[in-house]
Amino acid sequence: MENNLLTTLRTLFDSALDDQIRYVMTPIEMLKPMVYSLKNGGKRLRPLLLLSTLSIQSTDLIKSGLKSAIALEYIHTYSLIHDDLPAMDDDELRRGQPTNHIQFDEATAILAGDALLTDAFGIIVVDELLSDEIKTKLIFELSRSAGSHGMVAGQLSDVKADINQTEFDDLVTIHSLKTGKLFTFAIKAAAIIAMLEENEMQQLVAFSEHFGRAYQIHNDIMDVEGNEVSTGKSVHKDEDLDKVTYPILLGLEQSKIELNKELTAGRDILNQLSQQTQKDYGQLEVFLNLLELKEA
Amino acid sequence: MENNLLTTLRTLFDSALDDQIRYVMTPIEMLKPMVYSLKNGGKRLRPLLLLSTLSIQSTDLIKSGLKSAIALEYIHTYSLIHDDLPAMDDDELRRGQPTNHIQFDEATAILAGDALLTDAFGIIVVDELLSDEIKTKLIFELSRSAGSHGMVAGQLSDVKADINQTEFDDLVTIHSLKTGKLFTFAIKAAAIIAMLEENEMQQLVAFSEHFGRAYQIHNDIMDVEGNEVSTGKSVHKDEDLDKVTYPILLGLEQSKIELNKELTAGRDILNQLSQQTQKDYGQLEVFLNLLELKEA
Repeated sequence: MENNLLTTLRTLFDSALDDQIRYVMTPIEMLKPMVYSLKNGGKRLRPLLLLSTLSIQSTDLIKSGLKSAIALEYIHTYSLIHDDLPAMDDDELRRGQPTNHIQFDEATAILAGDALLTDAFGIIVVDELLSDEIKTKLIFELSRSAGSHGMVAGQLSDVKADINQTEFDDLVTIHSLKTGKLFTFAIKAAAIIAMLEENEMQQLVAFSEHFGRAYQIHNDIMDVEGNEVSTGKSVHKDEDLDKVTYPILLGLEQSKIELNKELTAGRDILNQLSQQTQKDYGQLEVFLNLLELKEA
Repeated sequence: MENNLLTTLRTLFDSALDDQIRYVMTPIEMLKPMVYSLKNGGKRLRPLLLLSTLSIQSTDLIKSGLKSAIALEYIHTYSLIHDDLPAMDDDELRRGQPTNHIQFDEATAILAGDALLTDAFGIIVVDELLSDEIKTKLIFELSRSAGSHGMVAGQLSDVKADINQTEFDDLVTIHSLKTGKLFTFAIKAAAIIAMLEENEMQQLVAFSEHFGRAYQIHNDIMDVEGNEVSTGKSVHKDEDLDKVTYPILLGLEQSKIELNKELTAGRDILNQLSQQTQKDYGQLEVFLNLLELKEA
């Protein structure tokens, strides 16, 4: 991500995350596996989406989003640790490094995930920059997005999906829960903290949904076309696992067309938002640009 | 538990839990494994401790504790599902029924646990009877009690404890985290909802700590002396697992002496509290009575 704003936000986020970890009273044997996965080279896409959306409202608001951004990254990190477990996707590599249960062991990985998930809610409530009203709204949305209505339900459907019985609409639903909901939370959290009006929030949510779908299609395409260096994980993994993916359901060419549709729809919303609000929502376009396929 | 108050509170709790489950928008394949473990015949000790403590303050307050009691039972239930997993205690029976991963499968059990944990926080924030200030206090305490500072850290230490290198103090610490913290949360939640003064809350917390230790010692003794019918799970399981327990560290007789010490200390605190506050804290004695060993 070569973008000045993103670089600045990333630096702010990384330093806030370091502070969060440094001042925590967690026993070291518990903290180690948590930090291992938290600091395993993630792109911080969800926190950056949250902080960028806030920065468009006002630079002063960025710091009010840091704790929520950390909580969101905790939830995302826990979900990766649990998804990689032998009983789920059984992955040994994540971002080019051993997955948590390979580096430690399975019991530790399950518990490190549980701890990250539980601690996430505690991080939001101690945020001194937010009112109790805003904190409870954030926690409601985070629980909804990540729990049995959201991400976890999506992961269960994904694990259980039968490759021969899954149709396009099912796939869209699975991924809107599994990956989409946390992107939407990133945007909603910013809208809650900035106290945006309902209409503006709804358009931002629609943007996040196009972004989430584009992200998943891009991911699936990269699994077919990418290599281990560029993706940091084993490629063709989805095929080996009989995973239902966009390229398997639609073919590669049609998947690319769907990806472009989503990116275009996302750009259209940003343009409308900028016109309606006189704010520079074009700054969020950098997230869509990340998902453009490079021409061979 | 033959006690009129407890029977009433239990009925209230069960019906509130049923409502909670009934009105949830969770996909059925996700809800099923959650409900399976939620309704698997638990004694509801933690919710009842919370609601009893509230009822001592005022009958009107009981309903303000129902959502927190449900959230607490969600957290307790998730912890049992994850503790029973093959990578942890590898238990096939829980309360005389197949454990979650035996009834469903391992991936489902991990995700049902994750969903219960995540949903718990959402249940507290939608409680219409509590102010945002009280909700954020409850969520702070729940996250602290259950997360990397509390229960999960205790479970990790328990899984990792070397039977040859664990001393009495270590065992007390492990269990104060693993089982004690949720009992303390039950009491603290009631104190927060009833807005008790700090001094009264601290004495109640001390009571909960004695109760928690007594509970664990009683559990360990029953594992040696009980039978599968009375405990609802495989006995001598701890020995098979090389688990560090009170009877193994102290011997059976000394463990019984320790148990009685904790029960007496608990009763002393209840007496003091009743005298100081003119409230009937003697009603909590029923929880201590549950842990009395029957003479052979």
